Amino acid sequence: MSDAPLEFYFDFNSPYGYVGAHLIDNIAERYDRKTDWYPIQLAAAFKLTGAKPMDQTPIKGDYLMQDSARVCRYYGVTYKHPDVHPFSPTAASRAFYWVKDKDPGQAKGFAMALYTAALANNEDISAPASVARVAASVGIDQKDIMDALDDPAVKQRLIDETDAAIKKGVFGSPFVIADGEPFWGVDRFEILDEWLVTEGF
Amino acid sequence: MSDAPLEFYFDFNSPYGYVGAHLIDNIAERYDRKTDWYPIQLAAAFKLTGAKPMDQTPIKGDYLMQDSARVCRYYGVTYKHPDVHPFSPTAASRAFYWVKDKDPGQAKGFAMALYTAALANNEDISAPASVARVAASVGIDQKDIMDALDDPAVKQRLIDETDAAIKKGVFGSPFVIADGEPFWGVDRFEILDEWLVTEGF
Repeated sequence: MSDAPLEFYFDFNSPYGYVGAHLIDNIAERYDRKTDWYPIQLAAAFKLTGAKPMDQTPIKGDYLMQDSARVCRYYGVTYKHPDVHPFSPTAASRAFYWVKDKDPGQAKGFAMALYTAALANNEDISAPASVARVAASVGIDQKDIMDALDDPAVKQRLIDETDAAIKKGVFGSPFVIADGEPFWGVDRFEILDEWLVTEGF
Repeated sequence: MSDAPLEFYFDFNSPYGYVGAHLIDNIAERYDRKTDWYPIQLAAAFKLTGAKPMDQTPIKGDYLMQDSARVCRYYGVTYKHPDVHPFSPTAASRAFYWVKDKDPGQAKGFAMALYTAALANNEDISAPASVARVAASVGIDQKDIMDALDDPAVKQRLIDETDAAIKKGVFGSPFVIADGEPFWGVDRFEILDEWLVTEGF
């Protein structure tokens, strides 16, 4: 088995991604693996698969609203469906990569703070200023983040990461790729675990 | 907690429904519950939700092909993706309800034989004659089934059951409703189990 990091893809709108963010590093640690986190613009993948945000899908949407809250309860993760949803995850995702390039560990803590703000505390994290406030709460300089969010290279980075993820077959959140094997959904983490135990089955 | 049966909805095309059919009665028995099985025409629900058969969805379809085979391996269920897929589940589903009205237990065995023919043995079960051959293998008279499949009331029954399922919010396979609580996907059976233990959480 390789020691490459488990690739963890998520969208800041996704309650299932939020639960996955609570779980993925613990799973990886059990097998002495690291993780590499990638926020993406799921809307770009949805354009290709024809999927829609949960709030906008007839019948299935009502179920997903109920199920996502239930899955959070099941895993003991505090959750409140935000008043505005889906919201733009663009600023949060851009800021994440900027932080990650300096300190991947801090970027994970930042991602958890962003997720908690959006999906537990009903804070609108779509605006750069909101993202910068959350950044400050985990020790990142607000002005640095605001400047970074204006940088064309930072903007391009998120486009490139999303494109690269889609090219690898990512279409949902959370999505894990372990040694090339894809796992979609927090409900596949049990099978991911078995995959890591058995080195493929 | 009620003693109403767990409602188990599935489509004969669905490998996840096939795995669910192997598991659902064991889960129910653990809690002294019965199950009531309902094959449906998932295509009718897909028209409302905008979903497509796994074979026809860009990116996501490739994943589902790989994942469904992996889920079958994980649960030890023999599976081969049929050469013709999706196939028409209409004759199989109509025949199921006709058998169920006489003997619900035999109908479950019949459903498992149909699933095995289609999803393990690559047999085309779309034609009435194929369904009748499978029926014969579980002790049901072939001619009786062929006659039943010509009966307008038997045809209407499947339309009515599918409509009723969709009205209850069923849009995928497998789909379980337990005391009004919906569970979509074989990956939700763990949470269904917890729900039955705790009488809701």
